[in-house]
Amino acid sequence: MIPQSRLYKDALLNNIIPFWERHSLDRTNGGYFTCLDREGKVYDTDKFMWLQGRQAWMFSTLYNQVEPKENWLEIAKSGVDFIRHKGMDAQGNVYFSLTANGQPLVQPYNIFSDCFAAMAFAQYGIAAQDREYKELAKKTYLNILQRKDNPKGKYEKGTLARPLKSFALPMILSNLVLELEDILEPNEVERTIDFAVQEVMEVFLHGKSGIIYEFTKPDGSLEDSFNGRLLNPGHGIESMWFMIDIAVRRNDQELINKATETIVKILEYSWDEEYGGIFYFMDSRGHPPQQLEWDQKLWWVHLETLVALAKAYEQTQNPEISAWYTKVHDYSWQHFSDPQHGEWFGYLNRSGEVLLNLKGGKWKGCFHVPRAMLQCWKAFERMENKGIIK
Amino acid sequence: MIPQSRLYKDALLNNIIPFWERHSLDRTNGGYFTCLDREGKVYDTDKFMWLQGRQAWMFSTLYNQVEPKENWLEIAKSGVDFIRHKGMDAQGNVYFSLTANGQPLVQPYNIFSDCFAAMAFAQYGIAAQDREYKELAKKTYLNILQRKDNPKGKYEKGTLARPLKSFALPMILSNLVLELEDILEPNEVERTIDFAVQEVMEVFLHGKSGIIYEFTKPDGSLEDSFNGRLLNPGHGIESMWFMIDIAVRRNDQELINKATETIVKILEYSWDEEYGGIFYFMDSRGHPPQQLEWDQKLWWVHLETLVALAKAYEQTQNPEISAWYTKVHDYSWQHFSDPQHGEWFGYLNRSGEVLLNLKGGKWKGCFHVPRAMLQCWKAFERMENKGIIK
Repeated sequence: MIPQSRLYKDALLNNIIPFWERHSLDRTNGGYFTCLDREGKVYDTDKFMWLQGRQAWMFSTLYNQVEPKENWLEIAKSGVDFIRHKGMDAQGNVYFSLTANGQPLVQPYNIFSDCFAAMAFAQYGIAAQDREYKELAKKTYLNILQRKDNPKGKYEKGTLARPLKSFALPMILSNLVLELEDILEPNEVERTIDFAVQEVMEVFLHGKSGIIYEFTKPDGSLEDSFNGRLLNPGHGIESMWFMIDIAVRRNDQELINKATETIVKILEYSWDEEYGGIFYFMDSRGHPPQQLEWDQKLWWVHLETLVALAKAYEQTQNPEISAWYTKVHDYSWQHFSDPQHGEWFGYLNRSGEVLLNLKGGKWKGCFHVPRAMLQCWKAFERMENKGIIK
Repeated sequence: MIPQSRLYKDALLNNIIPFWERHSLDRTNGGYFTCLDREGKVYDTDKFMWLQGRQAWMFSTLYNQVEPKENWLEIAKSGVDFIRHKGMDAQGNVYFSLTANGQPLVQPYNIFSDCFAAMAFAQYGIAAQDREYKELAKKTYLNILQRKDNPKGKYEKGTLARPLKSFALPMILSNLVLELEDILEPNEVERTIDFAVQEVMEVFLHGKSGIIYEFTKPDGSLEDSFNGRLLNPGHGIESMWFMIDIAVRRNDQELINKATETIVKILEYSWDEEYGGIFYFMDSRGHPPQQLEWDQKLWWVHLETLVALAKAYEQTQNPEISAWYTKVHDYSWQHFSDPQHGEWFGYLNRSGEVLLNLKGGKWKGCFHVPRAMLQCWKAFERMENKGIIK
């Protein structure tokens, strides 16, 4: 494996972050514009709260982990202030989207906006040493836990005839709890980690195939339905680097090995041998998936895979991981990065052509690209320092 | 324009309908399986009520318009009985989906299931001369009208901050009201037609560009947002043949001309010059659409276009329409029909390769293909009989 820390560090600090600093700030209303075209021009001003929380988290994290730059803290503040003052309803639930100046557009119909808000509040609270934001992070986190068994509330369209539980929740909790570690009670942290590891590794990771399912029946068995057969390879792989983070923290070599093995299994299952890249959705029985975009290649899937492979290699030096890293790295950097206008493309068709030339939209913002750059930079730096790679 | 009635008639009676007769009947529970793979094998047994209603309507319509075959009436009955006895809640709203044996899976969260159920009840009521089903059709229709200003009820996630009205409702009413014409009061029919024509032609048809928008502000002006910029060319074109049907009924040449002109405008706007075929979604300002499947080529879009062009040509003998018909016909028959296993493919990628090899699924059933075959057969037959084409 070749040394790569420099590549990711340069991209993060000289390309990705400047792109968002230059194009995304709403200096009138606070918060961020995320709908940016190829050159960074704003084409829509709606504010999607997933992306507000994610960008505020990103700049807080840069401040905490890279350099305490006042400018980064101000950018983060503008996001958390927008979420706090405009983005939450009277019960503390986070809206899905608002107008640029903060009128609610779409109700809080799931708990993911809240998860990203909580991450942002926590990291900003730590960065600014702001007790109020730390408290708000904790409150938002506890509100998520309260809603977790009925996350959609009255917006839930499913009946109870055939309930399924969703991988997304334990997956996100396994990351969120580490983000809030300094703010929560230690018992709470351990309890949530136990829950998340158990759900991810014993319930959604299917023993026989070795891959991760998006939904299972409440008893953990598989269901033969569209949702029950659904695989989201990027989700599965991303959750494995959350598991490795937890395993490193707990010094749990068995969990590291299992996560590493699972990354390989999922990649073997979901790599497109014909055109390269990782499929977006698959059906575990090979039936046609519901999702028409199933064969597209998405930026976050490939970036999360790079992070997972870097971390897995750091922990195992497994040559199979190294080979996969090279393959995914070459595909990703060749197809997604945009040397002409900066940042990465988000959406490619199956054969690797750009499908939508946006740099940011309703779902893509200042998050997966910079977070992956930071995670890979740091992982490779540790490996270089330890002499694992030179 | 070459005579084509034979092509469509043969396909309908010797290929399409036999495919559904052979593969889709649930002889245990009644109703239909719609998730059929390329060869017709059932890969999922859930019952999506849009498709139950549509197939029951199709077989009733065949009985009413083609031949009073007992077998067709029985197939239709099995669908309407399933919807009536299993598919409706206590308020008469139609569920979105059920298990094979009729347990509700997804609540009635919009009114489209109800629209297709009403169409089915009406045509079946006429076919079987069944007063109860005619009454149920009327009741279901009135229930739709009652829900029309708040179709999603408690499942509505949008706030009132920036309300939009949707083209889908007037569009479907303009077709539904003619399906129920024999069952409704004449005043009711005329009132709904007036409403639908006014909305479709004066509100959603944008005067300046000549194309149809999916959403407008309540006052009919355009909004610069993802939904406000959204174009669905297949929707627009389909609605134009509903307008032509109404215009013929009312002997309104002006409406025929306007609809014909609009078909051409939309086709010029949405034809893929590079690979052929009609795009699925577009953004009216050329921004990236939200819908990742925007560049795919869908069966119903092309079939509805064939119907619209056949009807427009029948009424106008406009050579521009003839040229478009040839272009769309050649693309559609070459790419969507499956000479090997029968029926049509539903989903192609941009370059025209099969994306999902299903013949039926959650959204594709026994409806658009056979309805278009029937409509084109009849339109060409009339043209041949009148000597418009030979």
